[in-house]
Amino acid sequence: MHLCRIAAMFFVFQDAPAGASTSNDAIWLWIALGVGALALVAAFVLAKIVLSSDAGTPEMQVISNAIREGAEAFLSRQYRSIAALAIVLAVALYLGYHLSSIPHDRAVALKTVIAFLVGAVCSGLAGFTGMYVSIRANIRTASAARTSLNKALQAALRGGAVTGLVVVALSLIGVGVLFFCFGGLTHPQEVPYELVGFGFGASLVALFAQLGGGIYTKAADVGADLVGKVEAGIPEDDPRNPAVIADLVGDNVGDCAGRGADIFESTAAENVGAMILGAALYPVFGIKGILFPLIVHAINLIASIVGVAIVKTNDTEDPMSALNRGYYVTSFLALGGFAFAIYHMLNGPGVHPAWLLGCGVTGMITAFLFVWITEYYTECKFRPVQSIAEASTTGPATNIISGIAVGMETPAMPVIVISAALLLSYYFGVRGLAEFTGISDYAKGIYGTAIATMGMLSCAAYILAMDTFTDNAGGIIEMSNQPHEVREKTDKLDSAGNTTKALTKGYAIGSASLAAFLLFSAYLEEIKTIVTARVHAAGPLGYMPPGWSFTNINLAEIPVFVGALLGAMLTYLFSSMAIKAVGRTAQMVVKDVRDQFRENPGIMAGTSKPDYARCVSIVTGAALKEMVLPGLLAVGLPVAVGVLFRNFSSVYGAGSSGLNNAGLAMVPTINGVPVNLGGASAVAGLLMVGTISGVLLAMLMNNGGGAWDNAKKWIETGKFGGKNSEAHKAAVVGDTVGDPFKDTAGPSLHVLIKLLATITLVLAPLFL
Amino acid sequence: MHLCRIAAMFFVFQDAPAGASTSNDAIWLWIALGVGALALVAAFVLAKIVLSSDAGTPEMQVISNAIREGAEAFLSRQYRSIAALAIVLAVALYLGYHLSSIPHDRAVALKTVIAFLVGAVCSGLAGFTGMYVSIRANIRTASAARTSLNKALQAALRGGAVTGLVVVALSLIGVGVLFFCFGGLTHPQEVPYELVGFGFGASLVALFAQLGGGIYTKAADVGADLVGKVEAGIPEDDPRNPAVIADLVGDNVGDCAGRGADIFESTAAENVGAMILGAALYPVFGIKGILFPLIVHAINLIASIVGVAIVKTNDTEDPMSALNRGYYVTSFLALGGFAFAIYHMLNGPGVHPAWLLGCGVTGMITAFLFVWITEYYTECKFRPVQSIAEASTTGPATNIISGIAVGMETPAMPVIVISAALLLSYYFGVRGLAEFTGISDYAKGIYGTAIATMGMLSCAAYILAMDTFTDNAGGIIEMSNQPHEVREKTDKLDSAGNTTKALTKGYAIGSASLAAFLLFSAYLEEIKTIVTARVHAAGPLGYMPPGWSFTNINLAEIPVFVGALLGAMLTYLFSSMAIKAVGRTAQMVVKDVRDQFRENPGIMAGTSKPDYARCVSIVTGAALKEMVLPGLLAVGLPVAVGVLFRNFSSVYGAGSSGLNNAGLAMVPTINGVPVNLGGASAVAGLLMVGTISGVLLAMLMNNGGGAWDNAKKWIETGKFGGKNSEAHKAAVVGDTVGDPFKDTAGPSLHVLIKLLATITLVLAPLFL
Repeated sequence: MHLCRIAAMFFVFQDAPAGASTSNDAIWLWIALGVGALALVAAFVLAKIVLSSDAGTPEMQVISNAIREGAEAFLSRQYRSIAALAIVLAVALYLGYHLSSIPHDRAVALKTVIAFLVGAVCSGLAGFTGMYVSIRANIRTASAARTSLNKALQAALRGGAVTGLVVVALSLIGVGVLFFCFGGLTHPQEVPYELVGFGFGASLVALFAQLGGGIYTKAADVGADLVGKVEAGIPEDDPRNPAVIADLVGDNVGDCAGRGADIFESTAAENVGAMILGAALYPVFGIKGILFPLIVHAINLIASIVGVAIVKTNDTEDPMSALNRGYYVTSFLALGGFAFAIYHMLNGPGVHPAWLLGCGVTGMITAFLFVWITEYYTECKFRPVQSIAEASTTGPATNIISGIAVGMETPAMPVIVISAALLLSYYFGVRGLAEFTGISDYAKGIYGTAIATMGMLSCAAYILAMDTFTDNAGGIIEMSNQPHEVREKTDKLDSAGNTTKALTKGYAIGSASLAAFLLFSAYLEEIKTIVTARVHAAGPLGYMPPGWSFTNINLAEIPVFVGALLGAMLTYLFSSMAIKAVGRTAQMVVKDVRDQFRENPGIMAGTSKPDYARCVSIVTGAALKEMVLPGLLAVGLPVAVGVLFRNFSSVYGAGSSGLNNAGLAMVPTINGVPVNLGGASAVAGLLMVGTISGVLLAMLMNNGGGAWDNAKKWIETGKFGGKNSEAHKAAVVGDTVGDPFKDTAGPSLHVLIKLLATITLVLAPLFL
Repeated sequence: MHLCRIAAMFFVFQDAPAGASTSNDAIWLWIALGVGALALVAAFVLAKIVLSSDAGTPEMQVISNAIREGAEAFLSRQYRSIAALAIVLAVALYLGYHLSSIPHDRAVALKTVIAFLVGAVCSGLAGFTGMYVSIRANIRTASAARTSLNKALQAALRGGAVTGLVVVALSLIGVGVLFFCFGGLTHPQEVPYELVGFGFGASLVALFAQLGGGIYTKAADVGADLVGKVEAGIPEDDPRNPAVIADLVGDNVGDCAGRGADIFESTAAENVGAMILGAALYPVFGIKGILFPLIVHAINLIASIVGVAIVKTNDTEDPMSALNRGYYVTSFLALGGFAFAIYHMLNGPGVHPAWLLGCGVTGMITAFLFVWITEYYTECKFRPVQSIAEASTTGPATNIISGIAVGMETPAMPVIVISAALLLSYYFGVRGLAEFTGISDYAKGIYGTAIATMGMLSCAAYILAMDTFTDNAGGIIEMSNQPHEVREKTDKLDSAGNTTKALTKGYAIGSASLAAFLLFSAYLEEIKTIVTARVHAAGPLGYMPPGWSFTNINLAEIPVFVGALLGAMLTYLFSSMAIKAVGRTAQMVVKDVRDQFRENPGIMAGTSKPDYARCVSIVTGAALKEMVLPGLLAVGLPVAVGVLFRNFSSVYGAGSSGLNNAGLAMVPTINGVPVNLGGASAVAGLLMVGTISGVLLAMLMNNGGGAWDNAKKWIETGKFGGKNSEAHKAAVVGDTVGDPFKDTAGPSLHVLIKLLATITLVLAPLFL
């Protein structure tokens, strides 16, 4: 970081400080960056502590090493593929900006590409760290489980916390340093727009990381189960199954690396989006409104470090209670910090900070409600999971029907919560800034929703620590033939890990839906800025209606409606591709395992070892191949819609808000011709309705999958005949169906939604 | 009908003919009504022919009578429930209109309620006719199958044609007569708005008919299969199964009565919507533009009668080829008639009818493409079904995963087709009317999409005849122990019936998506008309900006976005409720059959008869109870959103398109206060995005379900081990899962989409 600051002094874009310097307020940037740096140090220390603890028996290490090698091989091949794609896109991005007609865009082109590459690299780094630490923490957790549950829990959570801290800190530092290097302290209103590339780079890597990892993890899991549990009749994690190491590798590359990149992208995109909206309120808050999101994440880091530090348990307690205590402490600290930041940064004459704090509190409550609703739909003690378990008694068909019905029910409550949160935080935003007459209610309200999003994200690092919380320890214990009581301890951790994973998925989709509005609005602001620049560049030929803004995405116009249809369709087709990819890859696992059993009968007899590496390598190759097509679809469709509709005839009236009034020109014109907003509007329709459809589908798949999983677990506790009953067999079918839903398609949809937002932000100039 | 015309002379709303009489053009109304009446006569003659043919052996009649009694008992109980709900709603509607503040609305209140009740009664009549004839045609078809396939096919198709003709003719006559009675010939621009109640009445009955019937048919089917095929190991349609009659009853009340009400609603809603858009183009076409939809349906009736008449086959041909020949003839005639109508009705100085014909052709091609795409996804000879069959070899879980993946892929092509159809027909509409400068491009383009919808619907009666094409004959043959070769003939009909049912579902959802835009636009026109009336009623206090129209549904406004979220959520929750209702009702069937087997061991031994009626009565009661909650949700949510947001603070800026321009008031004001369009806008968001989400979900469920069904059938032809292999068992699971998808939730979603459109049209005054 120090290096970067020195480099920045020579940085090509570093303007000389102008009179408009806001040096006093720049202190907030340094505070945020300082906390980010400290968090990295804390993560390093935590990693040291975890890594210095006992690494288990030689048998355990053999297994752990096999997992490590498999995961590292996958990640290195995956990152090479992603890097190739990213470089192609960077060139395309540069050319695209360059071909845009006015010099302003050209100056921005290089900055955008640099931000894009920095974002991509940071995202890759975040994912890699997550995987690196998680694998090493796994074996230490397994080892610690041989002595006490508390030690195991702490090793597991601290391993997860390294990821959480690194992810949030890298996002904070990346955005902050780029902001400084691009001259944000002197041109605070312009630089946020130049950071959109950072979000896009993060999204792109996240998309492929989550897709590739998600396909890998579930193909290995489903394949191993199909051929192991179902065909050969050997238990889960049995060392005779050649796919078992691939399955364990999958947990690391899918859940840890994938989720790390996912949350990195969320914080990056939401930081940049909120800074753009802050720029729109520059007259009110100055640079502090722009730096506010960074400070929120600094608070997030501090609160999460404390939260992680206080988690301890004993051998009898449910580990979930200990984790929840940490969550409450983190939330409490985050709330205090949030209030401090609001009163010190978003304050001033005419501002009512209490209302703005209300926005933040709304966001935090939304987070709690989402976690609670997810719990209701995925935990054994409530009706939905029990209804699936009961339906299993009449066979797999009724299990599936009832699981899908539960999944389809799940969006109802979250949608109502999100609707209420949007309405409230918008209203609070308007009230908080009511005395400023020069700013539209719309800008005030939208900033309110942005504050709510910040509130929701203010515990993100802790949530991520809980999520990347290890669940491999059990597998290592099982495979290395440890005593039964050790397995009992890791089972407890396993079960807590399943719960936290479901909850954080609920949290992630909740923040995605709330942030969606923030990101739309950033896109609309960006379009307005570009149009304004172009009209001004046209000199006297350009005409800008007074007070014009691009805030009208009219669904009654055909291009917007068609964009909306295509956006919704994209989420279905993308999910279909992801699910089919899992199916195809799983078939390759099945085939390889069958081949191995046939080629080497000693495997099933337990006399010779299966070739784990062969299976790992097959899944790696297949998963990487399969991630390309859905990834390209996600990137290509919005671009195609924007570029196509940009060239459409003006008869469609898209974007010409001037329809309403027969008199004066109401839209910006250049040389008397209205600026064609058709492409930008169609893309906005795609973005918004694609987000709505994606959020709902993701909830269906995440919660449906989670409910199926726990219905099986509930039956295994002895309900409806218990393990190996007919009901249990039916429930296993549901669990298998739910796997690609909840671990591949669902999480990939989260990332898709964010990618749509960042790609439209970055490519906005091409749609005009 | 004659009676009605006499009654109309004394009708309270019949105004004295004014100077604006367009008596010459009124001839088109009489032509349409005349053709409608002739079609009813033709349907009567067809019914006579079918009913006069041989009614089979006494054994067959016993079974047929049991089915008839069950179906009639269900329908009579169902209609009584629906009637009670309809009367409550009629009163609420009247009060709602009455409480609206201006006298104009009050005058309309009674007309709307009358139209509502007429629509509901006609819809019920159409559904009842469908069921009445279909049951009687079934036994005749079964009987005819004992002599020749041609006779059986003709009996089956003619039975279906009675439904098709009655449905379309009743819709045509209902709308036409109300138009006349409400004084449409003297006030053609106002009366179409007064007909919206007709569409709502039809939708409401259709919703409950489809929901109740859909729950009934699949609960009986799934229940009978679960306990018969799976538990007791007896074949489908085995007379020892106490649920078998309920299953056969279900085919009639779900597919025939439900689908009849569904298509009745579609034609009714689209007729009324297109007439409203025609009213907006009154300056161009006069009353002919308003009567055009009625003439299109008259053409539809004539073309379909000819199409049905020419269908014949022989004992070796695939019945599907004969049915397709009829479809081609119908399409060809409809195209000719359409061109005639365009050149005679939508013509005049400055109109380019060739472009308008292009709109119609676009609609017809869209219909063909939808049918083709549906075939691709649901027929055994193509990849999707085969991929599901192949996945079945690794068990039920992979069968389900692959079926859902196929289902999620299905919306892609249809969405592209619909997008292209909307863009093209809009463009053609603008070109066709390019010379009229006083009308906005938007109104021209939207009328183009309306013509395309008319084109798509111009073969509806034939399509419906194919769809209600009997599939019960096989059951009767099976249960009455007829020789094997007879069963082979009815199996051919069965298989053709499965195909036509899948294709018409594709057609129905295609027309729903294309018509969606027509119906949105009618809603926007309606809101504009009401606002204009209220502003004028305020006298000098009211201000109407020149050229104002309500064509701006801004997704970037929070209330619209929240409405959109809720609309999408509604489709998920509604589907979930429908699917769960099937599950619960099926469990009651399972329980009753188990009870009967236990109480009377003679049933399985074949020595005594099961109590079919008890099972029928249980399903009837349960299905009717289950249809209420999802039905009320569908009706209640749009009303709640509209009424709630109407009262929302203006800070949300909803509907105030005036945001853009700081100067002049751009929205209508009364007493200086802008008319609050928040409720109307939020409802529009709900309607549009609810439609998009509903169309996609319905495609997923219809095509996924159809593909599962045929994957099972394909395996039964000997693929992957054939009948009773492990793959077949897995495929049976998929088929069972698909049943409530494709026969309950999917078709009910079609109706839901239309209901959303008609309820918003009818209740528009309450949202302002």
